[in-house]
Amino acid sequence: MAQVYFDHNATTPVDDAVFEAMLPYFQQEFGNPSSRHSYGTAARHAINRARAQIAAVVGVQPVQVIFTSGGSEANNLFIRGAADSLKPSGIFISAIEHPCIMRPAQELARRASDKWVVQRLAVDDQGQLDLEAAGGILTKQKSGLVSVMLANNESGVIQDIASIAEIARSHGAWMHTDAVQALGKIQLDFTLLKVHAMTLSAHKIYGPKGAAALIVDKRLLLKPLIYGGGHENGMRSGTENVPAIVGFGVACELAHSRIEKTAQHVSALRTRLEQGLHEMGAVIFSSGATRLPNTCYFALPDIEGDTLVVQLDKAGFAVASGAACSSVNPGQSHVLEAMGISPILARCAVRVSLGASNTLLQVENFLKAINHICTELRRMNGIVS
Amino acid sequence: MAQVYFDHNATTPVDDAVFEAMLPYFQQEFGNPSSRHSYGTAARHAINRARAQIAAVVGVQPVQVIFTSGGSEANNLFIRGAADSLKPSGIFISAIEHPCIMRPAQELARRASDKWVVQRLAVDDQGQLDLEAAGGILTKQKSGLVSVMLANNESGVIQDIASIAEIARSHGAWMHTDAVQALGKIQLDFTLLKVHAMTLSAHKIYGPKGAAALIVDKRLLLKPLIYGGGHENGMRSGTENVPAIVGFGVACELAHSRIEKTAQHVSALRTRLEQGLHEMGAVIFSSGATRLPNTCYFALPDIEGDTLVVQLDKAGFAVASGAACSSVNPGQSHVLEAMGISPILARCAVRVSLGASNTLLQVENFLKAINHICTELRRMNGIVS
Ligand SMILES: Cc1ncc(COP(=O)(O)O)c(C=O)c1O
Ligand SMILES: Cc1ncc(COP(=O)(O)O)c(C=O)c1O
Repeated sequence: MAQVYFDHNATTPVDDAVFEAMLPYFQQEFGNPSSRHSYGTAARHAINRARAQIAAVVGVQPVQVIFTSGGSEANNLFIRGAADSLKPSGIFISAIEHPCIMRPAQELARRASDKWVVQRLAVDDQGQLDLEAAGGILTKQKSGLVSVMLANNESGVIQDIASIAEIARSHGAWMHTDAVQALGKIQLDFTLLKVHAMTLSAHKIYGPKGAAALIVDKRLLLKPLIYGGGHENGMRSGTENVPAIVGFGVACELAHSRIEKTAQHVSALRTRLEQGLHEMGAVIFSSGATRLPNTCYFALPDIEGDTLVVQLDKAGFAVASGAACSSVNPGQSHVLEAMGISPILARCAVRVSLGASNTLLQVENFLKAINHICTELRRMNGIVS
Repeated sequence: MAQVYFDHNATTPVDDAVFEAMLPYFQQEFGNPSSRHSYGTAARHAINRARAQIAAVVGVQPVQVIFTSGGSEANNLFIRGAADSLKPSGIFISAIEHPCIMRPAQELARRASDKWVVQRLAVDDQGQLDLEAAGGILTKQKSGLVSVMLANNESGVIQDIASIAEIARSHGAWMHTDAVQALGKIQLDFTLLKVHAMTLSAHKIYGPKGAAALIVDKRLLLKPLIYGGGHENGMRSGTENVPAIVGFGVACELAHSRIEKTAQHVSALRTRLEQGLHEMGAVIFSSGATRLPNTCYFALPDIEGDTLVVQLDKAGFAVASGAACSSVNPGQSHVLEAMGISPILARCAVRVSLGASNTLLQVENFLKAINHICTELRRMNGIVS
């Protein structure tokens, strides 16, 4: 594969330094952290080191880090785990949450024995949460849980989580944020966000697949999703994925140390990208909102997104069409729908998510490729451009 | 660490061939299998290949393989997922199940809204399930789920799962077996076992931590534990851990191809080991039962297990004390308790679990080391040996 990779919000390659750090734990220091011999204690120390690294990056104590196998598991752990510790009431989620927040919430509401009610918090046409409306809805119904993502995987829109958390807290609700897409791209501090729980994941920050975390306020009552040997303070049982956790720790530190430099770099590339797309007549979604510096979500109004993705792939560029993170279940992007984007335009949505290794030359070539593909497609469709 | 590793039931090092197979998926073919570009399709193909490899080894179709992050998750998925698809009734588990079966079952029974009743199926003094008693209990109470492990992690005792499955089926229950310790050590065929679901795990068979599977009968109704993007046929959401799954597939094939040779090798070592231990006055647990060829669970009646493990570690041998798989929660082994072993003797339990790379010389040196340690400990305790 000699492709230009423009899909960093879907997943990232493991960084060299991360990979180096992981290597000893597959075949040499391969012990089970629960074992009491020296293989076990070496593995236990490695996990504790990673826990401390991650805790330091987001400003919490190591004991507040619950390792899970992925962002989806961490989000499910919060939704089900916190709900099972409360009397059923309202669960408030934004209309643009990832399916791994939406679906467990819906499932909770579906259970015959429970009385959880899911309430969606609306976003405006830029994909920004309507804080006033949210406050209003929270006042009307007793709320137990609130979950709003820090940065959206499709549009890159960043929410004012601290303000939402204040509203949630004033109604006595537990506040969670899915920060999977924000980590490594913008500064992140658990205390400043004022949340009770936060989801992080390794494979979006040049770490390995198979490691993620739910960061928790010590007062948060939570039931495990996976019961067993009592690992992770009883909150998540199962032999720890030592190499992946080690890689997560190092990836977190690296992402943190490079955050400003990377942001500047990808932000400059995106400016050029969006200028070029604009000239081709593209609509740039959420361009009026505060966004992640690496994400560009656009539509060329007469070119179907899926078609463009396939053609770009042939031309050597890996990008995503709408709702890429759940594209095992294709369909219209619920994010664009929530923003009031017409289904016709939403079908044209394409996401470019840049990474540190991308270059200006790649962006220029990409623009040329799009131009060429569009000309071809329009010609084939009998539309003279 | 220049230690002799005698703790293969806790975890194993990743095999060279497995590691080689995993390597490309960290940094080159690092795509998200849900992505529609060529990085994504390469990852998707890799997962499908692993699914086919595992399916072939246990005699099922690839669609029957649900990948999870570990054995604990797979066991929880069966217990909670199957229970949530049924009207509450009885859940029957053997008294020697791993905590990741016992705890979710207990949790089910604890939920105020449900009426699940957990029934323990007793074992005899050799750790073998009492089939007649089990049949009797199943007749008395309406049963929904039955879960009995194929091989026990502490004693290595192998149960007659097909017979238990027949009893379960005759009562209309769904039958599950935890085959985590059996895979790679004895022949395994889903159909011959007559179960509806079976748990497998990679890191016990020289595969990586972070990959496991629940094998299911297509008729089994199951609810997911982790909701989201709808991966694994909707049964387990979350970006797949591609390198770990690839490694699991290769590890499964390798384990299968080497099963007889390895069994012969470790079985010969164990014979020598148990002969030596016997001469020192050790009690060998479950020696009258059919056991995994690699597992030796013993006690020297005047030497505390934990003490012996620590001293052996210093002498260069990594072994486990009783209940090693859940030693984050130390305490008495529930397996030995279920076998009616006195708490005093149970405190002396030590497990040696051999692997393909162990040698006769290591066993001889181990016996010498134990002899020496015991002499020292007895001397310090004022007991002349
Ligand atoms: C915002 C957000 N949350 C959660 C997830 C789920 O992460 P994973 O698929 O690794 O479990 C993703 C990525 O897919 C995401 O973009
Ligand atoms: C019999 C058995 N089942 C399940 C497990 C759980 O596997 P894991 O800790 O990898 O989730 C283990 C090992 O710890 C085991 O020995």
